[in-house]
Amino acid sequence: MKLPGQEEFETSSAGENVPAGELDNVLGPGPDVPLDTDSRDMVVPNNPMLFIQLNELVGWPQALEWRETGRWVLFEEKLEVGAGRWSAPHVPTLALASLQKLRSLLAEGLILLDCPAQSLLELVEQVIRVESLSPELKEQLQALLLQRPQHNIQMRGTKLCWDSCFVESTDIRKDSHDEDAPLKEQHRNPLRQKLPPGAEAAVVLAGELGFLARPLGAFIRLQNPVVLGPLTEVPIPSRFFCLLLGPPMPGRAYHEMGRAMAVLLSDLQFQGSVRQASNLQDLLAALDAFLQKVTVLPPGRWDPTARIPPPKCLPFQHKRLSSQVWEVRGISGLRGAPAEDRHHHRGPHMPNPELQRTGWLFGGLVQDVRRKALWYSSDFLDALHPQCLSAVLYIYLATITNAITFGGLLGDATEGAQGVLESFLGTAVTGAAFCLMAGQPLTILSSTGPVLVFERLLFTFCRDYHLDYLPFRLWVGIWVATFCLVLVATEASVLVRYFTRFTEEGFCALISLIFIYDALGKMLSLARAYPIQRPGSPAYGCFCQYPGPGENVSQWTRTKPNDRDDILSMDLGLVNASLLPPPECTQKGGYPRGPGCHTVPDIALFSLLLFLTSFFFATALKHVKNSRLFPSMVRKVFSDFSSVLAILLGCVLDAFLGLATPKLLVPTEFKPTLPGRSWLVSPFGANSWWLSVAAALPALLLSILIFMDQQITAVILNRTEYKLQKGAGFHLDLFCVAVLILLTSVLGLPWYVSATVISLAHMDSLRRESRAYAPGEAPSFLGIREQRLTGLMVFILTGTSIFLAPVLKFIPMPVLYGIFLYMGVAALSSIQFMKRVKLLLMPAKHQPDLLFLRHVPLSRVHLFTAIQLACLGLLWIIKSTPAAIIFPIMLLGLVGVRKALEWVFSPQELLWLDELMPEEERSIPEKGLEPDHSFNGSDSEDSQLMYQPKAPEINISVN
Amino acid sequence: MKLPGQEEFETSSAGENVPAGELDNVLGPGPDVPLDTDSRDMVVPNNPMLFIQLNELVGWPQALEWRETGRWVLFEEKLEVGAGRWSAPHVPTLALASLQKLRSLLAEGLILLDCPAQSLLELVEQVIRVESLSPELKEQLQALLLQRPQHNIQMRGTKLCWDSCFVESTDIRKDSHDEDAPLKEQHRNPLRQKLPPGAEAAVVLAGELGFLARPLGAFIRLQNPVVLGPLTEVPIPSRFFCLLLGPPMPGRAYHEMGRAMAVLLSDLQFQGSVRQASNLQDLLAALDAFLQKVTVLPPGRWDPTARIPPPKCLPFQHKRLSSQVWEVRGISGLRGAPAEDRHHHRGPHMPNPELQRTGWLFGGLVQDVRRKALWYSSDFLDALHPQCLSAVLYIYLATITNAITFGGLLGDATEGAQGVLESFLGTAVTGAAFCLMAGQPLTILSSTGPVLVFERLLFTFCRDYHLDYLPFRLWVGIWVATFCLVLVATEASVLVRYFTRFTEEGFCALISLIFIYDALGKMLSLARAYPIQRPGSPAYGCFCQYPGPGENVSQWTRTKPNDRDDILSMDLGLVNASLLPPPECTQKGGYPRGPGCHTVPDIALFSLLLFLTSFFFATALKHVKNSRLFPSMVRKVFSDFSSVLAILLGCVLDAFLGLATPKLLVPTEFKPTLPGRSWLVSPFGANSWWLSVAAALPALLLSILIFMDQQITAVILNRTEYKLQKGAGFHLDLFCVAVLILLTSVLGLPWYVSATVISLAHMDSLRRESRAYAPGEAPSFLGIREQRLTGLMVFILTGTSIFLAPVLKFIPMPVLYGIFLYMGVAALSSIQFMKRVKLLLMPAKHQPDLLFLRHVPLSRVHLFTAIQLACLGLLWIIKSTPAAIIFPIMLLGLVGVRKALEWVFSPQELLWLDELMPEEERSIPEKGLEPDHSFNGSDSEDSQLMYQPKAPEINISVN
Repeated sequence: MKLPGQEEFETSSAGENVPAGELDNVLGPGPDVPLDTDSRDMVVPNNPMLFIQLNELVGWPQALEWRETGRWVLFEEKLEVGAGRWSAPHVPTLALASLQKLRSLLAEGLILLDCPAQSLLELVEQVIRVESLSPELKEQLQALLLQRPQHNIQMRGTKLCWDSCFVESTDIRKDSHDEDAPLKEQHRNPLRQKLPPGAEAAVVLAGELGFLARPLGAFIRLQNPVVLGPLTEVPIPSRFFCLLLGPPMPGRAYHEMGRAMAVLLSDLQFQGSVRQASNLQDLLAALDAFLQKVTVLPPGRWDPTARIPPPKCLPFQHKRLSSQVWEVRGISGLRGAPAEDRHHHRGPHMPNPELQRTGWLFGGLVQDVRRKALWYSSDFLDALHPQCLSAVLYIYLATITNAITFGGLLGDATEGAQGVLESFLGTAVTGAAFCLMAGQPLTILSSTGPVLVFERLLFTFCRDYHLDYLPFRLWVGIWVATFCLVLVATEASVLVRYFTRFTEEGFCALISLIFIYDALGKMLSLARAYPIQRPGSPAYGCFCQYPGPGENVSQWTRTKPNDRDDILSMDLGLVNASLLPPPECTQKGGYPRGPGCHTVPDIALFSLLLFLTSFFFATALKHVKNSRLFPSMVRKVFSDFSSVLAILLGCVLDAFLGLATPKLLVPTEFKPTLPGRSWLVSPFGANSWWLSVAAALPALLLSILIFMDQQITAVILNRTEYKLQKGAGFHLDLFCVAVLILLTSVLGLPWYVSATVISLAHMDSLRRESRAYAPGEAPSFLGIREQRLTGLMVFILTGTSIFLAPVLKFIPMPVLYGIFLYMGVAALSSIQFMKRVKLLLMPAKHQPDLLFLRHVPLSRVHLFTAIQLACLGLLWIIKSTPAAIIFPIMLLGLVGVRKALEWVFSPQELLWLDELMPEEERSIPEKGLEPDHSFNGSDSEDSQLMYQPKAPEINISVN
Repeated sequence: MKLPGQEEFETSSAGENVPAGELDNVLGPGPDVPLDTDSRDMVVPNNPMLFIQLNELVGWPQALEWRETGRWVLFEEKLEVGAGRWSAPHVPTLALASLQKLRSLLAEGLILLDCPAQSLLELVEQVIRVESLSPELKEQLQALLLQRPQHNIQMRGTKLCWDSCFVESTDIRKDSHDEDAPLKEQHRNPLRQKLPPGAEAAVVLAGELGFLARPLGAFIRLQNPVVLGPLTEVPIPSRFFCLLLGPPMPGRAYHEMGRAMAVLLSDLQFQGSVRQASNLQDLLAALDAFLQKVTVLPPGRWDPTARIPPPKCLPFQHKRLSSQVWEVRGISGLRGAPAEDRHHHRGPHMPNPELQRTGWLFGGLVQDVRRKALWYSSDFLDALHPQCLSAVLYIYLATITNAITFGGLLGDATEGAQGVLESFLGTAVTGAAFCLMAGQPLTILSSTGPVLVFERLLFTFCRDYHLDYLPFRLWVGIWVATFCLVLVATEASVLVRYFTRFTEEGFCALISLIFIYDALGKMLSLARAYPIQRPGSPAYGCFCQYPGPGENVSQWTRTKPNDRDDILSMDLGLVNASLLPPPECTQKGGYPRGPGCHTVPDIALFSLLLFLTSFFFATALKHVKNSRLFPSMVRKVFSDFSSVLAILLGCVLDAFLGLATPKLLVPTEFKPTLPGRSWLVSPFGANSWWLSVAAALPALLLSILIFMDQQITAVILNRTEYKLQKGAGFHLDLFCVAVLILLTSVLGLPWYVSATVISLAHMDSLRRESRAYAPGEAPSFLGIREQRLTGLMVFILTGTSIFLAPVLKFIPMPVLYGIFLYMGVAALSSIQFMKRVKLLLMPAKHQPDLLFLRHVPLSRVHLFTAIQLACLGLLWIIKSTPAAIIFPIMLLGLVGVRKALEWVFSPQELLWLDELMPEEERSIPEKGLEPDHSFNGSDSEDSQLMYQPKAPEINISVN
């Protein structure tokens, strides 16, 4: 989600230096100034990031020393004195009284703005000169201020805490000159690498000083920032210097005032004002402005010592702009904001270039080609980043896993007409071609669930009516390509504007359920193939019967007597029978006899174990990312490679036990899986000629399916929250898919469309994030590295993997079924629909604070969920009956159901629970999205929540 | 954890009514007034709970109506207007500006304190009279104020939102008299049941009113609280009435002022002041006092619209008392507080009565008996509460589960010398006796891990040296009882003061590891007993060989030809062999031949599945408690009965598949499991007489073990955080255990000591909690229903369960092993030691904000953990070698290691990581627990955290 004009700002103003006169914009931009939410405080022109350090005077009266006890950039880090470590960054909380005390101390104190001091000594002399102290006290004070403070520098894995004790207190004055030079330890401070270039420091010195009769406050802004020797833990130039000393006061008053000063300085608006301030009044006005905006927590309800972890998103500074500005900008309070935001999704931004009908034949395609051609060279140059290498490896592994699993399922579904080899070959060829030609090269083509379902239906149909499958399928493919070209020509892709979240979720839930159902069904079929032997079951006993002595006696008498089984047979007194297992028995010319010969014990249960292990292991590894254990790099690797690792574990377990579990069948040679067929499918085969015409009917259905599957995925991938710069290419993508379907039909390879999950994973691995400069700051999402090279590399690698066949045959099928279950469950649980289904089971008071629950009555939410459930149920029933072939049309029916919901739900409710369709958006007047109740501003409290820059929630699961 | 004097307060002042003059104590108690943390706002004398409601005027100018948009007791609930529901309770946040605006509005407005109005009409007339408005406006205003507001009353499952539209606006004046009577809907409001008797209401009316020229503020305190008709959503008498109206202002100013007023009134201190206030100045002073204590969040770092969930513990009001009071009370800032608190654990409170050495023989025992005798009748009367019934059921199920599992293990360990029947009988007899006699009747006696380990060692020893086990064991028991009596006589139990958390954790971790190891070991032994048949393994093939035709031909020719197996044999051309499974073969007089006859397929893997299922199911059910799904009652049941449900699931799965998994062996008759032995163990049996003397040696070790096991558990059970009123009885408990060991040795029943986990579960099911009156308030822990009846009932039921044997034999052993694994893992993960072990693997920046990490350097924490790990490793090694018999002495050695740690760690570090031993406490001067750094007050920030009333974290797992 972004604010209007944000994109432009990001692309145009990066690195620009706006003159100082424009600083006001930061504090109160006019209507034309873009508001940037991601490039927060630190990139605001002429406002360098400020590192603030609180040095506290401790040890009064015996052993005075300065100790760094707090530091701030965005959040507060407190020194845990006992543990000698920095606390986790947290939101600073202050007492109002401290701010007020600070205000009066500053009002009476010394304010030097644009002080020309060039070193700590000069600065200290400036401070001392003005103070009305006795010369002796002045000297004491100067010595004290020049004393080297004790920092707590945490090195990687260890900490360096340099003690000022080495410096004799009498020598302090003498040493101070040398100390103006920054120290080695300061340079080695890892914090220094984190701070951006140009960062400035502010130092707050606070503490109790018994020899002072009255409090001493000083606030100094240096004309030019100066490195003040060892005063700060990082050797960066200091801009502000604040001194808060005084006679002992109860309640750590100076410490709290110092914290208040530091928190003030860490505030962007205060910082801006104080950089501009020309006198004490400006400073106090800035403080008062800060006070006007603080949030107050009542004392009895909130423990002031509780540490609040940094929020995921910082509030926007625009909240602090005058409301007039917002009204001018047309964002008129209330739901205006979320509506504005939601418009982005399908409103003014996205549909503009890509989803406007041109009115010419192939007009959309031509425009797509023109638009993408401009980016073509950058599509390769933008890939020159190390991140792309790891993306290639990750997506390559995911792609071959997908190719293997779908290959296995397709081989099953088509009785070997297509298999793993075809799956690999097809994936590589079509994927690479798509990456080179398509409008959205981040898309990864893959076999998808719906197409697999259709292929299975098609094969069953051909088998039942004794048709030659591949030739018939070729004609289906030819027709599909034709229909898709018609869709491209007529710019049908602009209809994706009607795909709201309702459609996406219905589609996604159905696909996920099919995955889950298939995975469980496959496991059950294994249990039937390898039945479990219960006590008393008839399937017990098997032995190996040799041919009668008269027939082939010589063979058995020849056998060496020390052969294990013969010894056994002899021992048992058997002459023409032994207990050889069936395969060995057949090998030796015997006949396995008995009902137990066809059962292999332990396989069913071991398969179940493998299935469950791979499912739970993949799930658990995926969640390792959110664990606190291990460094984040390790966790990321575990999480990213969860399914690959789960497959590996399954293979190891299987190899360890050595049971004859069913394995993935892979061809050992580069030739079609089906014996005897050539790579080119014959146009008619054994079929009659008229079947090539009749194929148009299933092709029509498949075209709808492919259009839905391709375009729903494309809509998801091109969501505005991914901040894509180069735009989408709905028409061009469909055109490519059509051409590739023609190609794969001719070669008898599987059909491919965009696969949501793997494409999202691809995008996820190419995320660009802002560097987090401040401790506790969450990095913000900047966009995706949009290029064609990673996809291309992935598919080239996939192509070469055909020679991996000798390795792949060790993968047990139950492991793959487990991974499928995992993909189905992960995809199902990632959609908002499932959240709402859970709400059905959740007592109202335990429900999370979801935005739509704030705005839509619970009964309406439940009704919406129930309708979705009913649609899903209907789709499932249709899929399971002989009418399954019309399933693609029913998918299209989802859009109709969504349209009909307008009769049941108000546009406001649909806006919260779903999205608006084009007509609905038009039907609502400009201010029509305000709440239906009569009083103003009631919802202003969550408009902010909606503004928060939502990094895309990329769900790596299956479409 | 509690504050000094809290106990006394709880027992003495419950229900008392302190005269109004003592109200000051609430706001600033003198040193003698107890501070109660659990009985917060609502039980403070003469400060009835205040329900505050904000009615907002909406719809200006067309359709003015009052709508309730917020309510407060402790936390804020906001009306979600769009959704028509109340938000979750949250900590209210205010803008400082609203508070300031409110202050100036009140300063200029009407303040009526002790207004004598008796109805809404009178009240409104009072407000109107004083206002300087035109008569016409007055009438308009009066009509408006009497208008019935629209409430949002949420009924159970539905909501009732009554519309004021039915009341014609012209009739308002007329209707108002009738409306003074509370309405049916108000009475049906479920909130009414939640508010305590005597609760009062405060109504804040706020809104924009265009016809007013200037703001109108009024604050009225009624002399006597009056039910103001339909003004409040609950028909309770109102004490305060606040009106904040005025001409339109930007930013929902009146709404925010109204909220500020409501938040002020919800503050205990402000409320107290305003109840006492006699003029405007008092009111403003109270507001200013509130402002001085608010917590301030900086605007740029915290989104003011974010809703903060209610904290688990409210901050104490004593924080707001003057620090002088605290100094008088001897709690001198800093670590004084935690130290004070920690003293409670072993300090002034607990050791006082029970753990002070009297110096006489059996002095402690006598004192225990005297002390407990006083409570004996109340020990039965206090059980008269329905909660006790459910506690009995829960603990009964847990007890028999334990009896079954330990019975099974003991039967294994002693080759049937003791078994499930003995386990049931012994549990019932000793448990009931203990509940009747013991000092701490909440304790549940049970077989425990360490005793089981010892019993196994003893049995192995007897078997290896061909001793008669039960007679030898009888003598061990006699000696143990003697030694324990000596320990009682010499008051050795006072030594438990040396059992710090270090010892408890070492003991607990070892026991947990033994459980885990045993559970896994048992599963592996199953895999050996029922090997998995791999392809090509020699254990293949089995058939049934009949006796040769010459020997017993008649038997086989007699067989009916339609017998399944004979048909098979005939079909296969076999004459004297068939494929009958071994059991049936033997039954028919044949001989099972072949290596496969001894293997039962699928059992090993199915057992593994049952094992994993019961483990994961029990774990998952345990965590259902923290889920949001289902009502909390349902979740509590799932969680409380997790292991019972997991056992049931395992049995159902096992019965469904019908495999011959190993089942729990239970006797079908009431007689000793070992055939031929009588209930009374013969004193010598086959053993020599001198063995009865030699038994003293193992008995010495067992005595140490029993002392450690019994007393560590007793220390855990009698922790101060459980707020036990009737005290412990360490000497008496040990005495009872000694007598019961003698009894069980004579009867050949297992030995019993206190079982931590099940006793803790017992206490957990008897928790007394304060009623949560305010939405969002967490109920606070008041104590435990200390009585003898629940335990007694549990064991009587256990005794009658011996006749459950026919049911118990359906429980598969792998399921019980799974439950054991669960118990071991749960116990292991519940101790702080494991938290620290996890820290070893956690990068510093991801570590949670644990208190000890704030005060002890990480390297020292790791060192402490490493030492504990080393001790644990050593104990494990000893347990696994032939030296295992000295294992009890090594347990005692833990105390020595802990003592030696004083040389390595400072008392401060030990205080944070462990607890202090008696000498250490004494060695530290009164102020010695202050941090070792030099400046004052640095840790004041977490003293509060330590004060939080910690409800006991009861870990239902195994000791």
